[in-house]
Amino acid sequence: MTGPSISDELASTVKVLAFDIFGTVVDWHGSIVREMQALYPAIDGDAFAIAWRSGYQPAMARVMHGEQGWTRIDELHRSILDEILPRFGLSHLTEAERWHLNRVWHRLDPWADSVAGLTRLKTKFTLTTLSNGNIGLLTNMAKRAGLPWDCILSAEVFKAYKPHPDTYLGVARTFDLEPAQVALVAAHHDDLAAARGCGLRTMYVERPLEYGAAHPKDISAQAGNDLHSTRLTDLATQLGC
Amino acid sequence: MTGPSISDELASTVKVLAFDIFGTVVDWHGSIVREMQALYPAIDGDAFAIAWRSGYQPAMARVMHGEQGWTRIDELHRSILDEILPRFGLSHLTEAERWHLNRVWHRLDPWADSVAGLTRLKTKFTLTTLSNGNIGLLTNMAKRAGLPWDCILSAEVFKAYKPHPDTYLGVARTFDLEPAQVALVAAHHDDLAAARGCGLRTMYVERPLEYGAAHPKDISAQAGNDLHSTRLTDLATQLGC
Repeated sequence: MTGPSISDELASTVKVLAFDIFGTVVDWHGSIVREMQALYPAIDGDAFAIAWRSGYQPAMARVMHGEQGWTRIDELHRSILDEILPRFGLSHLTEAERWHLNRVWHRLDPWADSVAGLTRLKTKFTLTTLSNGNIGLLTNMAKRAGLPWDCILSAEVFKAYKPHPDTYLGVARTFDLEPAQVALVAAHHDDLAAARGCGLRTMYVERPLEYGAAHPKDISAQAGNDLHSTRLTDLATQLGC
Repeated sequence: MTGPSISDELASTVKVLAFDIFGTVVDWHGSIVREMQALYPAIDGDAFAIAWRSGYQPAMARVMHGEQGWTRIDELHRSILDEILPRFGLSHLTEAERWHLNRVWHRLDPWADSVAGLTRLKTKFTLTTLSNGNIGLLTNMAKRAGLPWDCILSAEVFKAYKPHPDTYLGVARTFDLEPAQVALVAAHHDDLAAARGCGLRTMYVERPLEYGAAHPKDISAQAGNDLHSTRLTDLATQLGC
């Protein structure tokens, strides 16, 4: 004699699932390590990936604080790359080599459960990206990896990076929905907390290997999220897909 | 002993196909006639569809001339609807009925060849919408009709309606391509001419029944387009897909 579960209520209220991408749907660390191993095997790919990614939040913060005008992630990734190459003994890379390496962010591999989970979730929900990655990057990534998005939304559409409220509320406005009819799916509690602050529902996905096996990540559940899932196929099961 | 055909050259140069939607991919006239027949069978659905659509260009022009701020097509469609309802004896429609009827633009049926043609074209090209319809409308339409877009681009992303150059050039910028690496696919020569003026390639699709059987449309080829096709499956064949 139990009432409807939280998952039943979520599955009937929520119409759009908005997905964080880097770390949640695709494995940026492993993909960059594999790319470096193939192109520059003498370099410590793990340290390189961590260094590249660690420049990401400060670069977006400079844009959001007005220190530089609107700049896409492709350009931010490139300036961080140019900055770290000397540290790894790669100052000699040509313009073409730098351009190609920077595009690795368009070639990130999905986690093993991502395509299967999204395909199941798509039967019941509208699936959109909500990433700080730019539209072209997200589209190229999806086409290569077979990610079955219904829509590509990006910081580039809203001219603001997460966690700015314009991004989360922008999804609801795009689809003429109340914020509570949209759920953010992410492997990052800070992203989810910001979405929750805007009235969205939140669904956590464990990605213990996001930073590689050498850098384990705390994946314990935190209060406030509507759902906690181990992977996207588990999320699909919990939502009845 | 002939050289490569124009189609071969196009198929190797062009990376992104950007599609006009209303009339090119979906049958707005037939869909609205069918909806009116089901909901309000006493009304002349053909005249109603033509009247609704004829308010579309003037409404966008008011936005582009600065007489009103940025407004999405959903809202423009609604104000035109409110304006024409009295002419058709439908002043009594409630708010909920008007809202539902206005959403017919999210429920437009594709032409019979659209899904098959796009599915073939998607094997070789990145497919994006480039429509004056808003993102939510295009996403809902695609999900219902099974249109396999890689990306949803809209006037709403660029905050400008076609034929403003920001829309055509916006597609090229989104994908870091030269304009000549993008082709617009449309059933309207004015849209294609504007795209060509920005350096895009252009591909015409015949849609003789766009305005219904009672209003035949000139579908003769015009100079300047790179390709002329009878339908999207024909376009796929011409491009080797």
